[in-house]
Amino acid sequence: MTIYDKLRELKIELAKPEPPVAAFVPTVQTGKLLFVSGHIAKLDGKPWAGQLGNSISTEDGRRAARNVAIDLLATLHHELGDLARVKRIVKLLCLVNSAPNFTEQHLVANGASELFQGVLGAAGVHARSAIGVSQLPLGSCVEIELVAELG
Amino acid sequence: MTIYDKLRELKIELAKPEPPVAAFVPTVQTGKLLFVSGHIAKLDGKPWAGQLGNSISTEDGRRAARNVAIDLLATLHHELGDLARVKRIVKLLCLVNSAPNFTEQHLVANGASELFQGVLGAAGVHARSAIGVSQLPLGSCVEIELVAELG
Amino acid sequence: MTIYDKLRELKIELAKPEPPVAAFVPTVQTGKLLFVSGHIAKLDGKPWAGQLGNSISTEDGRRAARNVAIDLLATLHHELGDLARVKRIVKLLCLVNSAPNFTEQHLVANGASELFQGVLGAAGVHARSAIGVSQLPLGSCVEIELVAELG
Repeated sequence: MTIYDKLRELKIELAKPEPPVAAFVPTVQTGKLLFVSGHIAKLDGKPWAGQLGNSISTEDGRRAARNVAIDLLATLHHELGDLARVKRIVKLLCLVNSAPNFTEQHLVANGASELFQGVLGAAGVHARSAIGVSQLPLGSCVEIELVAELG
Repeated sequence: MTIYDKLRELKIELAKPEPPVAAFVPTVQTGKLLFVSGHIAKLDGKPWAGQLGNSISTEDGRRAARNVAIDLLATLHHELGDLARVKRIVKLLCLVNSAPNFTEQHLVANGASELFQGVLGAAGVHARSAIGVSQLPLGSCVEIELVAELG
Repeated sequence: MTIYDKLRELKIELAKPEPPVAAFVPTVQTGKLLFVSGHIAKLDGKPWAGQLGNSISTEDGRRAARNVAIDLLATLHHELGDLARVKRIVKLLCLVNSAPNFTEQHLVANGASELFQGVLGAAGVHARSAIGVSQLPLGSCVEIELVAELG
């Protein structure tokens, strides 16, 4: 079963990535490493604004992180032409827009981690940090950047 | 036109970097990658303290990010001897000291991104994440770290 | 004197790392680089909760950061079999759970930086960023991730 079969099985469609709204590019490759810019969470194509521990529940945050992971896959597909070129998702930095008392950033980040593992298998298992931040661009509830190794 | 001609044209002077005030070094090279420590924003040689969405406007934050980028170039020049050794600015992490309601971290970060592109051309175009944090060392309004690829 | 002699001299014991409580792994190697997941501060084996500038003093934060560095060494030892395989600690990202007015993140992070240098010598001297975040998983006061170069 290919990665694309797996995506179909999971009923995941990779949208065409929108170009960054600012002065940078979605990915830069150096050697075999691909550094991917932070992607913010979206819902129905618009920034998913809100704060965990405030207007967004942990369960919705987890869905938001899963959405970001899907958009990161879409960017990887668009930039590489074939997701099979991803040898390994190396490292995620998961930024969670957090109210002062919210301490479940790791549970939110699991929404992305489980998606990568579910779609890419062993190649999707990564190192990770999850942290709570005071705000994110456009008020989005989650932002994730990653480093991948290419084959 | 060399990078240094470009800096002169833009009337940018690279100050001599101050040594870190703590137990670390400004850069570490591994293979062809150079990891550069977080640099805080300065104004007239002193930490530029303040918070976006509070005491600092988006436009001033953008200037602060531009200042950080100039100091990062100064560090690269000082450590490498010649900015032409920078093959690519790979990735920026832009940390913006943000009041709870400030959501224009990406616009602030553009001040750095545009400076790198303006001075280094295609080699200055990078991947990036911009995030809002609750505070930064010495109260500075912006801090930026980067990864560069050397030729 | 080996690294392990040094640890004994400093009376530091490396605990057996606990598996991550979420869907990721402690480290991923790519080429000669090892990306290590964020480790949260612990005290007596439990998350060291609290906020700098609020319930935690700078001096305790520094101890917390030192504890994280010891746990990071324990993870490196466990994953690599021998700390002598660490050619260089390349880069730390030090996340400090910070009250709005706390601006000594760099002093907190020194607790980790000095431990790495003390145990590993020149191989422990690294690039670094220290930032203030609004919360961390399980309410921990400090979290640190790192990139290391292997020999």
